[in-house]
Amino acid sequence: MVQPTSIPFTVNGRAYRPPARPLAVICLDGCADDYLDAAMARGRMPNMQQMAVRGFRGMARCALPSFTNVNNASIVTGLPPAGHGISGNFFLDPETGEEVMMNSARYLRAETILAAAARAGRRVAIVTAKDKLREILSHRLEGIGFSAEQADQATAATHGISEVEALVGQATPTIYSAEASLFVLRAGVALVEKGLADCLYLSLTDYMQHRYAPDAPEALDFHAAIDGEIGRLLALGVRVGATADHGMNAKQKPDGAPNIIYLESLLREEWGPGVRVILPITDPYVAHHGALGSFAVIHLPDALPSAPIARRLMGLDGITEVYDRETAARKLELPADRIGDLVVLSARDVVLGRTPDYHDLAALEGGLRSHGGRYEEMVPFLLSKPLSAEYGARAAGDLRNFDIFEFTLNGCRS
Amino acid sequence: MVQPTSIPFTVNGRAYRPPARPLAVICLDGCADDYLDAAMARGRMPNMQQMAVRGFRGMARCALPSFTNVNNASIVTGLPPAGHGISGNFFLDPETGEEVMMNSARYLRAETILAAAARAGRRVAIVTAKDKLREILSHRLEGIGFSAEQADQATAATHGISEVEALVGQATPTIYSAEASLFVLRAGVALVEKGLADCLYLSLTDYMQHRYAPDAPEALDFHAAIDGEIGRLLALGVRVGATADHGMNAKQKPDGAPNIIYLESLLREEWGPGVRVILPITDPYVAHHGALGSFAVIHLPDALPSAPIARRLMGLDGITEVYDRETAARKLELPADRIGDLVVLSARDVVLGRTPDYHDLAALEGGLRSHGGRYEEMVPFLLSKPLSAEYGARAAGDLRNFDIFEFTLNGCRS
Repeated sequence: MVQPTSIPFTVNGRAYRPPARPLAVICLDGCADDYLDAAMARGRMPNMQQMAVRGFRGMARCALPSFTNVNNASIVTGLPPAGHGISGNFFLDPETGEEVMMNSARYLRAETILAAAARAGRRVAIVTAKDKLREILSHRLEGIGFSAEQADQATAATHGISEVEALVGQATPTIYSAEASLFVLRAGVALVEKGLADCLYLSLTDYMQHRYAPDAPEALDFHAAIDGEIGRLLALGVRVGATADHGMNAKQKPDGAPNIIYLESLLREEWGPGVRVILPITDPYVAHHGALGSFAVIHLPDALPSAPIARRLMGLDGITEVYDRETAARKLELPADRIGDLVVLSARDVVLGRTPDYHDLAALEGGLRSHGGRYEEMVPFLLSKPLSAEYGARAAGDLRNFDIFEFTLNGCRS
Repeated sequence: MVQPTSIPFTVNGRAYRPPARPLAVICLDGCADDYLDAAMARGRMPNMQQMAVRGFRGMARCALPSFTNVNNASIVTGLPPAGHGISGNFFLDPETGEEVMMNSARYLRAETILAAAARAGRRVAIVTAKDKLREILSHRLEGIGFSAEQADQATAATHGISEVEALVGQATPTIYSAEASLFVLRAGVALVEKGLADCLYLSLTDYMQHRYAPDAPEALDFHAAIDGEIGRLLALGVRVGATADHGMNAKQKPDGAPNIIYLESLLREEWGPGVRVILPITDPYVAHHGALGSFAVIHLPDALPSAPIARRLMGLDGITEVYDRETAARKLELPADRIGDLVVLSARDVVLGRTPDYHDLAALEGGLRSHGGRYEEMVPFLLSKPLSAEYGARAAGDLRNFDIFEFTLNGCRS
């Protein structure tokens, strides 16, 4: 393989100094630390365990809301949402008044590290399980970008690569599967093996974490399989950094029923039909979570004052934080123009809904495990190499998951 | 040894059904989950690792503020602070106007599980590293209660036991040591071995966690030694439950200086000398934290309104939550009469101080690692036996560290 270039570059205020070796940053979607704990305690993740011992393992704080698009955008820009503009998977576009998916790169307000690395001469590839992320992650990228979900649709003209199934040696997986994530990692291995890329971003899906608790046999097998693919990357000499976009918690009552506060029903009954609740977890993958997470934004008609509604909401059991727009923008690092008049977070075991009719609870497979709030904020952060003194001191502070590219490129001792 | 009694009892609204075997609940003071991760990844905690695999390991939410007295009181009563009345290590007593330590059992507003177990015929022993906890933990206890710190002062009349050093085979340790915790565990082993107790509460000290990060050799050795003593308990047939009173985070800037917001200085300059800031982390063990934690309460003169001060505080970087008295009592489950007019929490890497003069930063050994806030709320929760279906379902919800006695006594399958 050609030696990767090591030309420094700067993007979004951070300077990157890539080493002349292949690199992979992995986003373990929905990987609460408990999943690693359960698998490692059983000896099922020997490669990640060696990363923890010989490299670095710590806990990082993700961007809020603890959702996939928000945090993938943060990871590939090195910025909080206030900087990159992606405030959820879904939002009420103030320019059109429409509720839309936030999958388009036109919502992205910053350059990506990946595009900048490619301009600096790296052979960049992004592989994502969910196709919804591909456009944002590939924004202005001169390189390879495809999803496992639509691997069979990749063409050289549109994705920088074709014949992906042949490359990976596997048919395009269904998105509701462990294979959707494993395909991403196998694609990463194949891209390095074939000399097609030397700077990878591999973003998995949290289907398995939504469905299974950390000590479920299915979750253990899944994480063991992830570990095996990471071992293949390490064996190829790839420096690996891994973090998660968000954690995951059970959001149900002891009887197994989802633990839901229907915010729009409650607020419209008390404050009229003009109140509109947006659930930024909403995405095309309804079997994951039924659009139920621990974060919501509320849009109020001009005539309604927000303070009494905020007080009312804070009076409810299961609601843990309520902020007005300005406070949310400042404290949660959100773009003020892309949130609601109020921002609401719920408890570790509570999700926020709109109305009972809005959610298809029958679509949930198994119990409800979800994310979006404060209790899914802390995520694992691992590197295959030990930190330099400078980065070790930084890691001892308020490490963020969107520091992962800087730490992987700049922060390691070897 | 005489077979332990298995007579059920009820206290503070919870029914306990102790099995006819020896039991030990361990409070791993300041044991953020990272400490277990770092030691287990290196194979240094084989007994705890086996508990995780064959019994149960999960994450529990502690009581806020995430301080020692608060959470030890919660663990031994099964109640949040609103129920037991211990709101900190230190508080402004509204009855006297004095700032006092909250070590006295006269502040305790609930019975303890330990006293009730003793009344039901169990041979109860509590052993605590820090003597400050002994009075609260031993409240109305017909049994054994002593501290490692003052082991040489235990007498049958006052502590239910004498000659503790001979029992343990070790001299009274200094409180600023790993031995202060290990002495507690060794005492527990000796009490079971000698048939002196069959229901133990063993509460360690977080000196090592305040001083060392999870992957420091000293922390790894400490946790390996803890694991060895837990292994001795397990070998004696003791059912073990273990949790922590609070987590632990570095609270410093990259240059190693403590990251402090001096609240009283700031508020007195803007709002006059009547503003009084109380730091409920304050305790006699200043080398641990210099009275610097991530939680403070503010007492205001009657003439000052709290709302603008709350807004001012929320405007500060590093302040994450500000509540008025009523909201704090409800959302943080605190006794309203034993907190301030405002309650303030700070960020993962930020502590709250009074004034620069108030704190003896020179007393801090090494960097500042501390706790008290939201980012030290999640703690490990382990049992040596697998959960029953009923308790497994409960564990999947919002498990609390003060559920540990109920889970250890009632929740296991064998």
